[in-house]
Amino acid sequence: MTYCLAIRVNDGLVFASDSRTHAGVDYANVYSKMHHFNLRGDRQMVLLAAGSLATTQAIMNLIQRDLDDPDAANSLNKVEYLFDAANYIGYLSTEVQEQHIAAMRRSGFSGEASFILGGQIADKEHEIYLIYPQGNYITASSETPFLQIGETKYGRPILDRIIRSTTSLEESARCALVSLDSTMRSNVSVGPPIELVFYVKDSMQLSHYLKLTPTSPFYASLQQCWNEGLKQTINTLPRFDWEQQQEKPAQQAADLHH
Amino acid sequence: MTYCLAIRVNDGLVFASDSRTHAGVDYANVYSKMHHFNLRGDRQMVLLAAGSLATTQAIMNLIQRDLDDPDAANSLNKVEYLFDAANYIGYLSTEVQEQHIAAMRRSGFSGEASFILGGQIADKEHEIYLIYPQGNYITASSETPFLQIGETKYGRPILDRIIRSTTSLEESARCALVSLDSTMRSNVSVGPPIELVFYVKDSMQLSHYLKLTPTSPFYASLQQCWNEGLKQTINTLPRFDWEQQQEKPAQQAADLHH
Repeated sequence: MTYCLAIRVNDGLVFASDSRTHAGVDYANVYSKMHHFNLRGDRQMVLLAAGSLATTQAIMNLIQRDLDDPDAANSLNKVEYLFDAANYIGYLSTEVQEQHIAAMRRSGFSGEASFILGGQIADKEHEIYLIYPQGNYITASSETPFLQIGETKYGRPILDRIIRSTTSLEESARCALVSLDSTMRSNVSVGPPIELVFYVKDSMQLSHYLKLTPTSPFYASLQQCWNEGLKQTINTLPRFDWEQQQEKPAQQAADLHH
Repeated sequence: MTYCLAIRVNDGLVFASDSRTHAGVDYANVYSKMHHFNLRGDRQMVLLAAGSLATTQAIMNLIQRDLDDPDAANSLNKVEYLFDAANYIGYLSTEVQEQHIAAMRRSGFSGEASFILGGQIADKEHEIYLIYPQGNYITASSETPFLQIGETKYGRPILDRIIRSTTSLEESARCALVSLDSTMRSNVSVGPPIELVFYVKDSMQLSHYLKLTPTSPFYASLQQCWNEGLKQTINTLPRFDWEQQQEKPAQQAADLHH
């Protein structure tokens, strides 16, 4: 499994992904799921991938081949809108899956893959798209300004509670790290290192790429702060009626000593 | 869908469940998933149910029929160990499912159900069991002293981070409420009211049954505290290097005014 997410706030984009791949419970490996291509100066894109590693690697190869070939019918350099790019990746994805689907089904595998594409082209808005295994795609809404693929549920509540369009890029990124950390803690199929990258809107370049492991001082410190903060927050939650009644005698006794 | 959980700590047991049932996205209803039977004075049990409502209702009827019948081969009053009770419920569950499985499959439904059984019999330990749709069952471990059924992933990270065998019953219950609240917020198939009940070990009786809706003052206050606490905790997380650098000039300027 995998967990990747992208957040689109007013200031730009944040991308985060884990790095664990595996075949069943065996053959666990570290592969980056965050992909970046050298594109024309008027555009910037990041592609996050979940699903069959064979499928996603084949798609990356096809994307690069089209970029290298000036006569290619389409490429990430030729699209005019980001949804064109989502459509193009969806097309490549279904083509690759189609090629192997019969053999994969015979072996009981699906070969499916999902993607999150985020970026900006020229004077258009910065956007994020989720591309389904079927090749169709959706973008995020201003009410739910993030997209997730893979093992999405563990890390979702913190995003639902915190992320708004007005959240800063850095706060969004801290939230993404907590979301990934919670997922890794509860599900062994999602694992480090965590990759994190920022895109400031209209900059046409990525900034602050980070690769974090549990031993990275920043990540260790974030984990510790979060754990302690949660424990404190649980401790500040309202008491049940009977606890207050139980606490009263002690309080009265304390009053006597004043 | 459904979300139910039980927590087993040194002091006793906490049970919590949502109340939403639905057929597809239609026919959403409110049904209690927390079941309790009048048992002999030497035992206490609570049964939480997830899955096909027809299956779970049939099983509750069979459990009650066996309790009413002094000649029944087995019943919750006759078992000597809690795992016997888990085994008995697993047997009833597979019997009920077997009865309808052919017709259910023709209509594309499964009719499956899962249960959490918790309680205590006589001088034995208080325990919790998860009963799978296949009728087999597991108990919780001292390292992971809780069990969940239904839509379990959204609400799991907070349990993983907070619940230990030494956690108090009330703190466990607050944690269970946060876990349910997070799930309800991220998934519309889990809905209020939330039912919550406590069992203090060796007491042989349930205590403090609560039925909470989002408008219950206690629940509303807990939601608000939790949201604010999370926001504050996110805000205390370590800053990225470049934020500290950005903050420095302002700090130096502030120093000048001292």
